[in-house]
Amino acid sequence: MNHTSLLLIAHGSRRAEANADLEHVAGQLRARGNYPDVQVSFLELAEPSIDDGGALCARRGATDVILLPYFLSPGKHVVEDLTAARDRLAAMFSEVRFVLAEPLGRHPLLLEVLEQRAGEAVGARPA
Amino acid sequence: MNHTSLLLIAHGSRRAEANADLEHVAGQLRARGNYPDVQVSFLELAEPSIDDGGALCARRGATDVILLPYFLSPGKHVVEDLTAARDRLAAMFSEVRFVLAEPLGRHPLLLEVLEQRAGEAVGARPA
Repeated sequence: MNHTSLLLIAHGSRRAEANADLEHVAGQLRARGNYPDVQVSFLELAEPSIDDGGALCARRGATDVILLPYFLSPGKHVVEDLTAARDRLAAMFSEVRFVLAEPLGRHPLLLEVLEQRAGEAVGARPA
Repeated sequence: MNHTSLLLIAHGSRRAEANADLEHVAGQLRARGNYPDVQVSFLELAEPSIDDGGALCARRGATDVILLPYFLSPGKHVVEDLTAARDRLAAMFSEVRFVLAEPLGRHPLLLEVLEQRAGEAVGARPA
């Protein structure tokens, strides 16, 4: 049976609040119902790591794990780190398919989000 | 006559490529036609600064400038810096209205972007 996990990846921060943002996003993704299994993970400064997060997905019985960067414009080194993590996980759990998704930046819907944020700001401005 | 400028704000990077991403977004926003006047600016490490970008908008005749953060989850210090920049610009150009928009994170459409990125990754995975 097919079981796809989303492994959501943020940079990680020393601020608990920033890391909690990713948990919030994970909860909202689960609630949408298209991907009931969503696992958070962090590149650094917070737990679980990408490797540990991927292992959790595999142990929950995932057949497919999509590494999903929560980054607008990750730098070259971040992309290299994500690719290396994918390769390590694929070597460790050879029965599971690990794929790395594109970051959020340059997605056309982001333009819509930006314009909506602009519209809200003007709507909400004090007189 | 009303003239609204979008002052797009990214963190700024030593990598020219990362800063070019913001120019790319600005170009796409202009092309949509809802906000023909879009100015990029950077919190640090790149030019123009937020203050300089806001001044450029004012000198182009903006009556309203929307400071639009290109951040998913800005930290407390970033939000403070953006608010301080807004206040400085408002004091410098008292005839212009400067408003600060919300960051992109937690916008419901981001969930759609994440799911689309996940779908693309699975669609594009090697056999």
